[in-house]
Amino acid sequence: MDALLNGSKLLGHWPSILGGLIIGLIIKYFTFLRTKKLRSSKKLPVDGKEQIQGLSNKSSTEYKKNYWKPALAEKPFVPFVPGNDLNPNGARHFYELVRGRRSIRTFNALKKPPISTIENCIRAAGTAPSGAHTEPWTFCVVEDPSIKSAVREIVEHEEYINYTKRMHAQWVADLRPLQTNAVKKYITDAPYLIIILKQTHGTTDDGRKKQHYYNEISTSIATGILLCALQAAGLCSLVTTPLNCGTALRRLLNRPDNEKLLILLAVGYAVKNCEVPDLVRKPLDDIMIKY
Amino acid sequence: MDALLNGSKLLGHWPSILGGLIIGLIIKYFTFLRTKKLRSSKKLPVDGKEQIQGLSNKSSTEYKKNYWKPALAEKPFVPFVPGNDLNPNGARHFYELVRGRRSIRTFNALKKPPISTIENCIRAAGTAPSGAHTEPWTFCVVEDPSIKSAVREIVEHEEYINYTKRMHAQWVADLRPLQTNAVKKYITDAPYLIIILKQTHGTTDDGRKKQHYYNEISTSIATGILLCALQAAGLCSLVTTPLNCGTALRRLLNRPDNEKLLILLAVGYAVKNCEVPDLVRKPLDDIMIKY
Repeated sequence: MDALLNGSKLLGHWPSILGGLIIGLIIKYFTFLRTKKLRSSKKLPVDGKEQIQGLSNKSSTEYKKNYWKPALAEKPFVPFVPGNDLNPNGARHFYELVRGRRSIRTFNALKKPPISTIENCIRAAGTAPSGAHTEPWTFCVVEDPSIKSAVREIVEHEEYINYTKRMHAQWVADLRPLQTNAVKKYITDAPYLIIILKQTHGTTDDGRKKQHYYNEISTSIATGILLCALQAAGLCSLVTTPLNCGTALRRLLNRPDNEKLLILLAVGYAVKNCEVPDLVRKPLDDIMIKY
Repeated sequence: MDALLNGSKLLGHWPSILGGLIIGLIIKYFTFLRTKKLRSSKKLPVDGKEQIQGLSNKSSTEYKKNYWKPALAEKPFVPFVPGNDLNPNGARHFYELVRGRRSIRTFNALKKPPISTIENCIRAAGTAPSGAHTEPWTFCVVEDPSIKSAVREIVEHEEYINYTKRMHAQWVADLRPLQTNAVKKYITDAPYLIIILKQTHGTTDDGRKKQHYYNEISTSIATGILLCALQAAGLCSLVTTPLNCGTALRRLLNRPDNEKLLILLAVGYAVKNCEVPDLVRKPLDDIMIKY
């Protein structure tokens, strides 16, 4: 969470947003006209193999089909056997496990889990689904103290500006209950930092640019799985999204510029007298609607 | 995954993006000048209680502090006792559990888990961290066959346009290995649809607008936790992001317009002879870098 909160910065850019919006709306109008025409002239197929076959060839001649190669290889499907049928207590036990997770800001600097545990957690994160199976994520695991210090310096520098000048007063107010500020001791205390980058695009085996559809959503889903794995391993963590630190952190870690900072995750053990904000989660009825 | 893939639609809007970009760059330049001035005139505090105190008061007088109320209540912190210390096998066992997950498109229409299982999975998702603890998610659980049919109609209508006209030929090619098309039988076959909405903002107890920082990342992380819970319960799922269906689905479900479609998740059991694409996941060395 922490610096997961910078929407109000956008307010400062209102002229560009407004400009883009107006041009966007004009284009949207023409798209709408075209779609309307399309809708009135065509009927949607409901089901059936013929329509499916027809669909995939309708807009493309055989030449076109060969020209636009998919990023993934086209292979026959394989049988899938799900591991187990409904485990009636599985969901409840899993909820009991993850409900114990809290974001902490005070890490025990002297206690370090083995790297093999972190590796298994990242293996788990790597099972996340992604747009067209592009797997658009890189997990940078930092344990070198000097690199952790450099990360902290970058983050504190920008966060100082965020808290004092850049962000809206409402942003600063909304952070008050979490008692955060620009000093980020957890970055050097936590035995591991996992800096999660989303890849905006990639490269195919034959050197073409590969579009990474929905890379932010996919990488965030992977992060959710990572948090569960860390919890299963008995580790604590803190999810942060340091504002304006992306380029500096990417350069520090020597990563290519198709990789963008999504999340800085601190991982380790809580100190003995760890305290957290007295937060309550929304009840089920507030987050789930039945139809 | 499925329709998790529409970046190329943006290409059609290039003039608005270019326009916004130029104006944005001009503003960025002025912001840069201001930040540069700020950096040269101020030094970042490194640590210490005094600086922390100073920081939180520096930019705001007592009046300002009282004017901008935080969205959350300001309460004393409470002690936090993590559930368990490192479970050396926890991460490995968890990886074994989640590696068995695959997105499936052929659901058994006759087999339905109890709603209590789905509820526990959504309870688990609701433990996700979120920007300033805003919990910006709504999970719409659809089991009514007529609503599922209406959802399918909306999605198939738009997807037909996506496949035949709207999207770039590369998008259509990239989907070929997954053998998807505009016919979405899984929407009516799956016993449950979980339509996941992100809330762009909310309302405080005293009726003010509450900013939902990083609502997309937060809701996607919650989705990652939900997928793990479903897997722990022995259920199968399919993550999709139907393009251009947001408004129609929101209206169908009678949800307010601060809630935007993020993911349409089909949940249930695989058919007996279920097949999936022959995909391999990236090895650990491709997704994890050590420092």
